[in-house]
Amino acid sequence: MNAPAVDFFYEFASTYSYPAAMRVDEVAGVAGVAVRWRPFLLGPIFAEAGWTTSPFNLIPAKGRNMWRDLERTTAAMGLPLRKPDPFPQNSLLAARIATALPDDGRRAAFSREVYRAEFGEGLSIMDPEVLGRALASAGIEPSTAIVAAGSEDVKKALRATTEEAKAKGLFGAPSIVTADGELFWGNDRLEQAVEWAARAAPR
Amino acid sequence: MNAPAVDFFYEFASTYSYPAAMRVDEVAGVAGVAVRWRPFLLGPIFAEAGWTTSPFNLIPAKGRNMWRDLERTTAAMGLPLRKPDPFPQNSLLAARIATALPDDGRRAAFSREVYRAEFGEGLSIMDPEVLGRALASAGIEPSTAIVAAGSEDVKKALRATTEEAKAKGLFGAPSIVTADGELFWGNDRLEQAVEWAARAAPR
Repeated sequence: MNAPAVDFFYEFASTYSYPAAMRVDEVAGVAGVAVRWRPFLLGPIFAEAGWTTSPFNLIPAKGRNMWRDLERTTAAMGLPLRKPDPFPQNSLLAARIATALPDDGRRAAFSREVYRAEFGEGLSIMDPEVLGRALASAGIEPSTAIVAAGSEDVKKALRATTEEAKAKGLFGAPSIVTADGELFWGNDRLEQAVEWAARAAPR
Repeated sequence: MNAPAVDFFYEFASTYSYPAAMRVDEVAGVAGVAVRWRPFLLGPIFAEAGWTTSPFNLIPAKGRNMWRDLERTTAAMGLPLRKPDPFPQNSLLAARIATALPDDGRRAAFSREVYRAEFGEGLSIMDPEVLGRALASAGIEPSTAIVAAGSEDVKKALRATTEEAKAKGLFGAPSIVTADGELFWGNDRLEQAVEWAARAAPR
């Protein structure tokens, strides 16, 4: 009998994916739910909505509230917060590296290090050096991972994940999709998503 | 010594204002926080962002998720849910009536009845008869309240509340603003807002 699992869709440019990435494994673990780490790109989905940048930039009052709310959220978790410049960051290289890594803990560890650098220290994740250090901090040999990230297979796999996310109805990140197709959007919904998965799983 | 109070800004066309209106008095009461009921209009604020309708209509995937999420949210609260047609409803008359009522429990009672009709039964709050019944259900004499809602003073007061909301940085509903100016957006943030108000209040 398999443990229930959820797909955790995250985008490295997404602010609320930061606290979510830091706690999703623990929230799910307590409920006996496994987490599949699914990096994807919101850019192509936003572009279809006619947006050329983050809605947090398009609606300044919404953006101001988001940064303040994120400050409260991360403070309550004991996490540092520093806004990267520019915001949003181009997340393509980070997403390709994460896609190239096996989802056996290494992808999650690297992803958490990327968020820590980007939103904890305000560093640019468009800088390969920052991503190399994130890999090293996660215990992964950087050069091999970065070369692997450049392959056609990885590019295709990332495009496929983004297409799958769109097909599942995603419009923002983080989002969790359960095995029975239920979509939960936002760091605020992690607990509900995991409870849903635990309840829906066949016994 | 005064009890701490928060401003609860709500919009009758707003879906998440429905569960928030149904529980805000209880959530705040437990923490010893008073609630000022502040009906306002999001339309003029959305118009400045260039939106002519609800963002839930502009981004279909976002709208689908909202209705499903609201279904889960209201089900967990034991509240009925039915989508009004059209969505969003024109909330002007309801907001004027609420503004005309004294904030001594009657405004809150009427507002909850409006939400119950609109999102619990899917009725049109553009229909004066529906609003008249909401008044009667709240124990308020309908004709007097509806006449009062048509006065210039009430129209001015509603415009002033909307201007105040914008000045406080509101971009959506429901929103809570504490005495020290902290803004909390969404039904998900009621508890945090009330805790903030209880903590920040001078002892």
